Amino acid sequence: MKRSTTQILAKLRELMLRAQVGDSCGISAYIVPSDDAHQSEYQCQHDERRSFVSGFDGSAGTAVITTETALLWTDGRYYQQAEKQLDSNWVLMRDGLSATPSIGAWLAKNLPKGSFVGVDPRLLSFRVWKPIETELSSAECQLVPIEGNLIDEVWGEDQPPQTSNKIITLKLEHSGVTIAKKWDVVRQQLKEKNADALVVSALDEIAWFLNLRGSDIDFNPVFFSYLIVTNDELLLCVDSGKLPTDFVQHQKENNVQINVLPYASIGVEISKIVSTKESKIWIAPTSSYYLTALIPKSRRIQEVTPICVLKAIKNDVEIAGFINSHIRDGVALCQYFAWLEDQVKKGAEVDEMSGADKLESFRSTKDKYMGLSFTTISASGPNGSVIHYHPKKETNRKINDKEIYLCDSGAQYLDGTTDVTRTLHFGEPTEFQKEAYTRVLKGQLSFGSTVFPAKVKGQVLDTLARKALWDVGLDYGHGTGHGVGHFLNVHEGPMGVGIRLMPDDPGLQANMFISNEPGFYQDGEFGIRVEDIVQIVPGQVAHNFSNRGALTFKTITMCPKQTKMIKKELLSDAEVKLLNSYHQQVWDTLSPILSREGDEFTLSWLKKEVQPI
Amino acid sequence: MKRSTTQILAKLRELMLRAQVGDSCGISAYIVPSDDAHQSEYQCQHDERRSFVSGFDGSAGTAVITTETALLWTDGRYYQQAEKQLDSNWVLMRDGLSATPSIGAWLAKNLPKGSFVGVDPRLLSFRVWKPIETELSSAECQLVPIEGNLIDEVWGEDQPPQTSNKIITLKLEHSGVTIAKKWDVVRQQLKEKNADALVVSALDEIAWFLNLRGSDIDFNPVFFSYLIVTNDELLLCVDSGKLPTDFVQHQKENNVQINVLPYASIGVEISKIVSTKESKIWIAPTSSYYLTALIPKSRRIQEVTPICVLKAIKNDVEIAGFINSHIRDGVALCQYFAWLEDQVKKGAEVDEMSGADKLESFRSTKDKYMGLSFTTISASGPNGSVIHYHPKKETNRKINDKEIYLCDSGAQYLDGTTDVTRTLHFGEPTEFQKEAYTRVLKGQLSFGSTVFPAKVKGQVLDTLARKALWDVGLDYGHGTGHGVGHFLNVHEGPMGVGIRLMPDDPGLQANMFISNEPGFYQDGEFGIRVEDIVQIVPGQVAHNFSNRGALTFKTITMCPKQTKMIKKELLSDAEVKLLNSYHQQVWDTLSPILSREGDEFTLSWLKKEVQPI
Repeated sequence: MKRSTTQILAKLRELMLRAQVGDSCGISAYIVPSDDAHQSEYQCQHDERRSFVSGFDGSAGTAVITTETALLWTDGRYYQQAEKQLDSNWVLMRDGLSATPSIGAWLAKNLPKGSFVGVDPRLLSFRVWKPIETELSSAECQLVPIEGNLIDEVWGEDQPPQTSNKIITLKLEHSGVTIAKKWDVVRQQLKEKNADALVVSALDEIAWFLNLRGSDIDFNPVFFSYLIVTNDELLLCVDSGKLPTDFVQHQKENNVQINVLPYASIGVEISKIVSTKESKIWIAPTSSYYLTALIPKSRRIQEVTPICVLKAIKNDVEIAGFINSHIRDGVALCQYFAWLEDQVKKGAEVDEMSGADKLESFRSTKDKYMGLSFTTISASGPNGSVIHYHPKKETNRKINDKEIYLCDSGAQYLDGTTDVTRTLHFGEPTEFQKEAYTRVLKGQLSFGSTVFPAKVKGQVLDTLARKALWDVGLDYGHGTGHGVGHFLNVHEGPMGVGIRLMPDDPGLQANMFISNEPGFYQDGEFGIRVEDIVQIVPGQVAHNFSNRGALTFKTITMCPKQTKMIKKELLSDAEVKLLNSYHQQVWDTLSPILSREGDEFTLSWLKKEVQPI
Repeated sequence: MKRSTTQILAKLRELMLRAQVGDSCGISAYIVPSDDAHQSEYQCQHDERRSFVSGFDGSAGTAVITTETALLWTDGRYYQQAEKQLDSNWVLMRDGLSATPSIGAWLAKNLPKGSFVGVDPRLLSFRVWKPIETELSSAECQLVPIEGNLIDEVWGEDQPPQTSNKIITLKLEHSGVTIAKKWDVVRQQLKEKNADALVVSALDEIAWFLNLRGSDIDFNPVFFSYLIVTNDELLLCVDSGKLPTDFVQHQKENNVQINVLPYASIGVEISKIVSTKESKIWIAPTSSYYLTALIPKSRRIQEVTPICVLKAIKNDVEIAGFINSHIRDGVALCQYFAWLEDQVKKGAEVDEMSGADKLESFRSTKDKYMGLSFTTISASGPNGSVIHYHPKKETNRKINDKEIYLCDSGAQYLDGTTDVTRTLHFGEPTEFQKEAYTRVLKGQLSFGSTVFPAKVKGQVLDTLARKALWDVGLDYGHGTGHGVGHFLNVHEGPMGVGIRLMPDDPGLQANMFISNEPGFYQDGEFGIRVEDIVQIVPGQVAHNFSNRGALTFKTITMCPKQTKMIKKELLSDAEVKLLNSYHQQVWDTLSPILSREGDEFTLSWLKKEVQPI
């Protein structure tokens, strides 16, 4: 499993010695983040530099190479994987343990005074850069931007090129609002902030704002680009070769003119605006240090962009699309689970990977299907306890009637993005498994039915999903909810529900869509998670939080939750009612479609699964 | 109600013109915080500068005087009061509304480039200073420390002197742990942080660490002083005239020697340590900018002090004292409520002020009584909806059988500090009042009985106390819980339970004591709050959060909650059981004492109040 990094590190250290810092030469450490230049959650292969240099290919982690040693910081989800993948050149720094110093603190403690620490300033967000810079400066060291990426130099010709796939246009019937109208809102907010321009580097924000979609990053329908929005201009920095053939028509339909400039010209364009305009320039704190530093500090507004917030509050067309795509997705899920249960009962050979393939094949028959929204987590038994598990050949397990099967999956449709988890047992679950499942479900029902004042931060609702587990000393080590894009990234901000505050959360508002996904994981034995997507809707209650407004959730995921796993005596009457009514709704929504399609097989499975308890 | 500030502002503006800033002269604005030099929550009269300059005497608020205008920022609790008290020289800035800019933002927008904004650096914590400084610098203005306090100069001879009352020693039978032992723990933490010294300016931290108490600030048994703890020295900056006569004996008993220096020498002493030692110096981010700036940035550790955290986790003697003092306090409360109900039923003339006096007289008969821990909130009808109400002649209302009576009160005992709220109706509450009361009580029971993983931040539990109110669109505009000192300040950090994160919260730990106080307020009509003090204790549950440890709460306040206000149909069986069992415990604890004292009158009232529902 281990790949030797000795050669790579030797080459990198040579480059570190020669790196130019002002008039002097040489850096004592080089930081390799997992970010791309857009701080995307997922990267294309070209951008998997941290994975290349360290051998560790988990989704989160930062490598730090000094002249003496090499360290990799990653969090609890990846300790095991990192241990397996890192060779002896590397020290694993277990992020999240109180004994583990932060990157900045470690460097400040271990480097001699006056040291330079280098990083590619495109690959580190301003928000991450700042505390490292502060820690280093307290130890009289300095964090410095290094021109050109040293890893790319080491990687050389073997580095895959940046993907540059064709862009597609999203018609108004799927986007719902013209670019011109979105621009109006942004313009208004620029005015309120006394700003001349908004610099956008987040790929999903650009795609959403321009009613365009791409495929440069697996699962994420985005395309590499930068956008500058001013009061009178839209500047799109993108390789013009990937523009759609109907781009002219698209601009007409959207009542705008978009000025296209080369992808690499973003720096020049920002500098032009800095020198020709006088007011402030708005850039997200999550944008790169490189882009941010082009704007003088006194001219910056560093707040979540108005596009990010607008995108999270879905318009009527997006809402309808979300609901419809979740119905089609629910049909595919039912078809898969019905098929799977039958296969397992027959003793057929289905494993995690072939199961995931089968699910994908059901989804691919659905209208407006565009692909998966992330690699399917198809996990049997102990694999289910690995929260970010994806089946691989080495870990692939047969799906059977002795173990719990956890399936977390989702798809991209032209009219929406899905993300759903169901946990099933095809044989006899243990009492403890049933108790854990029931408490996870109680948390999900409590969270999903709660009424709350408009604009509370998602964080304040997190505990409601954990309470039933806490009652007996159980918990889960991940957040409860994340935003979901509309035919866009399956994880999107700015809001979210977890123990920790999302720093940009503007508060929960009607027509945001988030996940509701408590879980429980017994290390090395099994995992349980039940996940729905919920729409935030007005709450119908007697009072209205002193005119602040009442909100609640509406579940749009349509797929039964296995009642065999439930210990009914742990549910309150209200919870039983909520569950039965959800199942009735699933039946009312999906059964006509299955009937129409003549899928009696799935229909009879569904009938069984939605029986009231 | 309004006092003219015209003269005061004129004099102040003269001084502002003459204020020296480096080589130049004159500041464009002067900030007057409500802090004293120790960032105390309550101040002695000498330190009520903001109140003197503005006429507004609420507990929270900051005045900003420019050459042109004068502004007062205060939060929602005080909008009405500020409107009444500010004269026409002042503009009220309603803090907490999204349209209200922060002080820094307002100044940055309204002052010309290059302006200086002055403040007494002793009266602003580093944590508050920093963001104002940043906002100003982004507008090319500067926040500057001004030597000598300009308000004191204007106030002149009329300013009350700083109080300087005699200090008393707290014997080991009440403190539980010698200073030497506390010092050992601090020394260990200094070592871990590679620090030479700890600078302490918070008065309750100094009092607790040194097993001393004072009376320089009403209700808070503290004394004006600064403390520096190094590995081999304890330096106490205090006016030596106020030291207790048994101070030598006290040091012997506590196995330490304390070097006493003049109160005003703290700055010199910090500078000495900076120049003679080489390692870091620890100071809380809540200490003043003045003290903090004496330590070079690279030498500072700016974290909550180890004393603050140690103080919050009570030792065995403190725990026993807390429990015992709450029992004695409970007897006094029952005696008062029994008397009050009888008076009201008789139609006697009892008003909010005379009621509060009567309660104080009952408390003052109790063993180890030292005084009140805050001004009693004795509030009838609409006054109860003013969250920080204290009865005054102008607002004083008769306590009667038509309105809800809210009583939030507490006392200082040698062995503990109490804080308790009960809400009663001596006639017939409305259905809505009963519903609100019951939902407040549900929240209190839910919060008070919750099991949670050790070291979660208090914030994550806040919603549990609100859920039952949220279910019908109701809420309350204050936090759910605050720490309580041991014969010390009734509000203490570093932990707390509220919508917002307490930035220094180290996570909830066994033997911390906090309040559990949800409420509901119907503006201009009534207020409801039920408040107990709870001890954090190990939770007895089947699992143990993967060895993280399970915690829960134990209520130590001993006073019945009026069952007449309850709509039983809104309570679950579990909630009814919790309430009945609490009342049984109150009866078992208090009735033997009342019997022993021969107080049959209170005993028969108590008997009635604790009847199971």
